[in-house]
Amino acid sequence: MRNFSVFERFSKAFKDHPSLTRILVVSTISGGGLIAYSEANASYGANGGAVVETGTKKKKVVLLGTGWAGTSFLKNLNNSQYEVQIISPRNYFAFTPLLPSVTCGTVEARSVVEPIRNIGRKNVDTSYLEAECFKIDPASKKVYCRSKQGLSSNGKKEFSVDYDYLVIATGAQSNTFNIPGVEENCHFLKEVEDAQRIRKTVIDSFEKASLPELSDEERKRILHFVVVGGGPTGVEFAAELHDFVTEDLVSLYPRAKGSVRITLLEAADHILTMFDKRITEFAEEKFSRDGIDVKLGSMVTKVNEKDISAKTKGGEVSSIPYGMIVWSTGIGTRPVIKDFMKQIGQGNRRALATDEWLRVEGTDNIYALGDCATINQRKVMEDVSAIFSKADKDKSGTLTLKEFQEAMDDICVRYPQVELYLKSKRMRGIADLLKEAETDDVSKNNIELKIEEFKSALSQVDSQVKFLPATAQVAAQQGAYLAKCFDRMEECEKSPEGPIRMRGEGRHRFRPFRIWKLRGISKTLSQDTTESCALDHKGVGKMELIPYIIRYRHLGQFAPLGGEQTAAQLPGDWVSIGHSSQWLWYSVYASKQVSWRTRVLVVSDWMRRFIFGRDSSSI
Amino acid sequence: MRNFSVFERFSKAFKDHPSLTRILVVSTISGGGLIAYSEANASYGANGGAVVETGTKKKKVVLLGTGWAGTSFLKNLNNSQYEVQIISPRNYFAFTPLLPSVTCGTVEARSVVEPIRNIGRKNVDTSYLEAECFKIDPASKKVYCRSKQGLSSNGKKEFSVDYDYLVIATGAQSNTFNIPGVEENCHFLKEVEDAQRIRKTVIDSFEKASLPELSDEERKRILHFVVVGGGPTGVEFAAELHDFVTEDLVSLYPRAKGSVRITLLEAADHILTMFDKRITEFAEEKFSRDGIDVKLGSMVTKVNEKDISAKTKGGEVSSIPYGMIVWSTGIGTRPVIKDFMKQIGQGNRRALATDEWLRVEGTDNIYALGDCATINQRKVMEDVSAIFSKADKDKSGTLTLKEFQEAMDDICVRYPQVELYLKSKRMRGIADLLKEAETDDVSKNNIELKIEEFKSALSQVDSQVKFLPATAQVAAQQGAYLAKCFDRMEECEKSPEGPIRMRGEGRHRFRPFRIWKLRGISKTLSQDTTESCALDHKGVGKMELIPYIIRYRHLGQFAPLGGEQTAAQLPGDWVSIGHSSQWLWYSVYASKQVSWRTRVLVVSDWMRRFIFGRDSSSI
Repeated sequence: MRNFSVFERFSKAFKDHPSLTRILVVSTISGGGLIAYSEANASYGANGGAVVETGTKKKKVVLLGTGWAGTSFLKNLNNSQYEVQIISPRNYFAFTPLLPSVTCGTVEARSVVEPIRNIGRKNVDTSYLEAECFKIDPASKKVYCRSKQGLSSNGKKEFSVDYDYLVIATGAQSNTFNIPGVEENCHFLKEVEDAQRIRKTVIDSFEKASLPELSDEERKRILHFVVVGGGPTGVEFAAELHDFVTEDLVSLYPRAKGSVRITLLEAADHILTMFDKRITEFAEEKFSRDGIDVKLGSMVTKVNEKDISAKTKGGEVSSIPYGMIVWSTGIGTRPVIKDFMKQIGQGNRRALATDEWLRVEGTDNIYALGDCATINQRKVMEDVSAIFSKADKDKSGTLTLKEFQEAMDDICVRYPQVELYLKSKRMRGIADLLKEAETDDVSKNNIELKIEEFKSALSQVDSQVKFLPATAQVAAQQGAYLAKCFDRMEECEKSPEGPIRMRGEGRHRFRPFRIWKLRGISKTLSQDTTESCALDHKGVGKMELIPYIIRYRHLGQFAPLGGEQTAAQLPGDWVSIGHSSQWLWYSVYASKQVSWRTRVLVVSDWMRRFIFGRDSSSI
Repeated sequence: MRNFSVFERFSKAFKDHPSLTRILVVSTISGGGLIAYSEANASYGANGGAVVETGTKKKKVVLLGTGWAGTSFLKNLNNSQYEVQIISPRNYFAFTPLLPSVTCGTVEARSVVEPIRNIGRKNVDTSYLEAECFKIDPASKKVYCRSKQGLSSNGKKEFSVDYDYLVIATGAQSNTFNIPGVEENCHFLKEVEDAQRIRKTVIDSFEKASLPELSDEERKRILHFVVVGGGPTGVEFAAELHDFVTEDLVSLYPRAKGSVRITLLEAADHILTMFDKRITEFAEEKFSRDGIDVKLGSMVTKVNEKDISAKTKGGEVSSIPYGMIVWSTGIGTRPVIKDFMKQIGQGNRRALATDEWLRVEGTDNIYALGDCATINQRKVMEDVSAIFSKADKDKSGTLTLKEFQEAMDDICVRYPQVELYLKSKRMRGIADLLKEAETDDVSKNNIELKIEEFKSALSQVDSQVKFLPATAQVAAQQGAYLAKCFDRMEECEKSPEGPIRMRGEGRHRFRPFRIWKLRGISKTLSQDTTESCALDHKGVGKMELIPYIIRYRHLGQFAPLGGEQTAAQLPGDWVSIGHSSQWLWYSVYASKQVSWRTRVLVVSDWMRRFIFGRDSSSI
C-alpha cells in the first residue's frame, strides 16, 4: 500500500513554510521515532553468559574485522573467561547503510562511525591492533598481520598473533568482475573513505565545470555521473546524488544547470530485483520522472579514463563519456580469505563455507561470519538414512508416526528447511507431510513408513534451503549468535542443547544459527535476537522455550529513492512506498545506531540538512 | 583580574554530575552567549553604498583569496555596479581561529567552513573559480590562474582573467625560515586540511604505539609531540592536545599511558610574548603543572625524520626524538606575491606595501589586504615641510595656533600617529604638543611657530607608527573597509571625503584605514565597523560624524590554555584568565561565525564534546 496522503500533506507543508517549521516537524517526528524504536541495550547479563571468575588462563579470541559482524560479536560477548584481540585496519565501526548519505553530505562521515575501543563490555578483556591480517595459519594457530605504519627503527611492519579461537569477520570487497579499467577509474562505496572521496569528487566536478575555457561537450562529460549496479546501494546513491544536485548544487553553480546527467547501468532487466515487483516499478517510474537515466540490460565491458563501454542484451556495444563512476555491483572475496580458502580446500568457492554453527568447515576453532562467509546448510537428503535410523528407535525398519513426531523436533532444528517447507505448503504438521507422500488416506496413527516412503516424504524439502543475503542485519545477527555461543561454551560442553547428532552420538552443543527467511509471520521490526523460537513452532511440535536461541529474523529492507521517499519491504511481504516509509527509515536507522553519540549526531545531521541544506565545501 | 570563583564552582559541578547536567549548563550559557553576542547582519544597505542601476558596463573586480580579508570584502560589498570574480583554490571560507580545535576533534572541520558561493550580497554579481593565481600582470591587467584539474581533453590547466580592479587577499603561508627538514617533516596549521591531517596523525600515533613488538623507547618517541612556536596558535594547539590526551585518549589506549609527552619549543624567552606579562606567566605556570614541557630560548636548527635539533641561547645543540611536530612560528610570503613584489620593485619586502587606502604602492587599481600586505603609514617627518606650507594659509612663514588647529583635523586623519602620540603622552590637545616643543611658557594664543619649531614639536610622533598584527580581525576589518570604499567609489570621486592632500591639490577620496591600536578607550567587544571616529577625537578638535568611516579596532585577543581556561586580553588592557574567559571565548567565537549554519554546528560540536568527549576514529 502506498501511504501517500498524510505525508504528502506534510511534504507540501514543508514547501510552503520556512525552515523553522521544518525543525519542529523533524524534531517532533524523529524524536518520537527515537523514543519508539530506540532499544536500550537489552540486559543479556542476567540470564546470558556465565561469568567465570576463576584463576585459569583466559582463552584468547582473535577477532578479525570491525564491521557489522565483528562489532556485534564484540558488543554481545559477555564472558570474562575470554581475552579478545581485535585486529582490523579500521579502528572504528561504520554504520554502512548510511554511506550513500555520506557521499552527498546528508550525513557526515564522522556521525556514522564509532571507535571500536568504545564498544564491548567492561568485563571482557579486549584490546585492539590497527593492522590488516594478510595470512591465517590454522596449523600453528597464528594470524599474520601488517601495520600501515613502520613498527621500529628497521621499518618492520609485520607481526603475528596467536589464538585459541579465531573469529573471521573481515567482510568482502567490491567485485569488479575483472572488467578492465574498473579498479583504476571507478569509485566504490564500501568504506567511509570511499564515501568521502565521492563527495569530494562530486564537488570537484561542479567546480571544474564552472571553469572558463571549457567546451559545452566537455562540461557535459564532467557532469555526467554514472552509477553501475541497480542494487539498493547504487539506487540509493543515484537518488541521493539527484537530490544533492537539484536541492543544493544547481542554485550554487548556475553554469552547471542543464548539463548534469545521472545514468544508472544495470545488467539485469530491472533495478532492485531483490525487492517486490511493486517497489521495482515505482523506483523505475520515479527515476524516469526525476530524469535519472536507467539503462537496463546494460553490461559494462570496459572502463577507460573518460568513457565507459556497455553492451546491451542484443550485443550492441556503446561508449558513454563520463565524469565520475560509482561502481556498486556486488561483493568479491578479499585476498586473505582467498588464500585461507585455498589452504583448507575451499579454493573454488566465493566465500568461506561454515556449518550452521558458523564454524569454518574443515577447521578447528575457527569461525566465520558476515559477508566473508556463507552457511552451508546440510541437506536432508544427504542424511536421510541416518535420520531414519535415528528416528527408528525400536529398529523395526519402519517409522511410526509417534517415532517420526519425536524425531521431528531435532530434525526441524537441524534442518530448518523442513519447517520452511511445511510453511510454504501451508501444512500444519507432520501428518500433512506424510499425507502428501502417501497416496492412500490412512488414519494418522496407523502410519508406518518405510525408508523409501520417508525419503519420498522429505524429497522436496531441500528446495527450501535458503542462502542469507550479504547484508548488515545478517552479519549483526550472526555476531550476536556467535557471542552467545561463546558465552555458553563451557556450560554447553557439559550439557549440550543442540539437536541430536544424526551421524554420531549425543547432541550438538548449540542450536544452529537458522537460515530462515520469515514470510508472513513477523509483524514487528524488533530485532530481539534472544527471543525464543517457540512462538513460531506451532503445529510442528512442542518445543521448549530456550531463551538464548538466535536465528535470523528478516527485519525488512529499505530502498531510499530520493525526494523524501523510500520503498520498504517489511516482513510479511508488506510493501510501503513513499514519505511514510521515509519516516520509518529515519526512525529505524536512528534506532539501530551503535551508540547514543552516533544516534544524536545522525539525527542532528538530518535536521541540519533540512534547515541549512547540504554543505558544498570541497573538504 | 582572575574571575575564578563562580566558574570553578561550575567546573566542579561538571565533575560531580553526569552528562545531562552538562547539556543544560552548556546550552543555557552558550545559548545566552549567542543571543547576547551574535550580531544580525547590520543593514549597511540603507546608508551604505549607492546602488547604481544604470546600463553602463559593470566594473570587473577580481578577488584573490577566500580567507578573512577576501570574505569580509565580499560580505560587505554592496554595489551592483561591480561584477566580482573570486579566484581561490579553496571554495570555502574557514574560521581559522578554531583550527586548533579541529586538530583534536573538539570542533569538526566542516563546522568551521562555509562555501564561498553562499557568501556575498544578492545585488552584487559574483562568481567563483576554483584555481590558484600564479601570476599577476599589472601591465595588461590580467591574472594568470591554474586549476587543480585538467580543463580540457588536452589537459590544459591554465587560464587568464582580466580585471578592472584587483583585490589581493591571498594570505600568507607558514614560515620555515629555510630550516632544513621543516617542510618535509613538520605539520603546519594554516589550512583546514592541515588540521585534519594533524588529527589523523595524532590518532595514528596512538594506534602505532599500541602495536606489539615495539620497544619502550620507540613507543615514547612515537608519543612525543613537539610544538614549535609559542604564539597563540602553538600554545592553543599544545593545550588542546593535552586535553585530548588526558580527557579522551589515555583511557582508550592504556598502553600509551605514561609515554605521552608534549614539548613546546620557543626561541624567545617567553611564550605568548604579544600578550600581557600576567598572561604569559599564567600560561607558563599552567603548562608546567599540566606536564607540558616548555623549552624557552630554543632555536630549532634542523629537523630529521625522527629527531629535531635545537640550539639553546648558550649555543648548546641537543637532538630530541619525536613522533610528530607541529610548526607554528609565523608567516611567510606566498610565491605569487613574491613574484609580484619583484615586478613592482618591492622585492626586498616581506609583504606587499600598501598605502593607507590599502592600494598597493606603485600600482593602479590593485588593492591588497590581510596577511599578504602591510600598510606603509606615511611618516610625518617625511612630509613635514609640505604639511607646514599647507597649514600656513597666509604664507607668512610661521604658523599661528589657529592655523595649526585648523590643519590638525586633516593631519590627524592622515597621520594617526599624531593622535596616538598625544594619547600616549596624556596630552589633551595641540597646545600641549607645542608646549613640549617650546621651552618658554608662552600664552597659547600668541604662539607663532617657525618651521624648525614645528618640526621639533612633531619630531617624536613618528615613533607611534604601529604595524597591525597579522590576525583575522585586522584582515576582516580591512575587507569591510575596502568594500565600503568600493561602494562609494563614484560618490567620493565627485566629492572626496578624505584629508587634504599634503603634497598635491584637493582632498583624498576616502578617509584612510587607520592604524590604531586602541588602549584604554574601547570598553566593548562590538565590531561595529561603521561607527564614527568622532567619539575618540575629544580634545583634538571638532570632527564631523561621518558614518562610514572604518578604522581598526582592536577587539582583544584570546589564548585558550586548555582545561576550560582561557586567557583574554581585552581592549583597555583588561586581562582576564580562567574559566570565565573560556565562556567569553565560546560566546565571542560563536558570534563571529560567518553564517548561522556554522554557528549552530560549532555550538553543537562543543556540546557534543562536553557530553560524549572527542571522537578517536581514524577518519
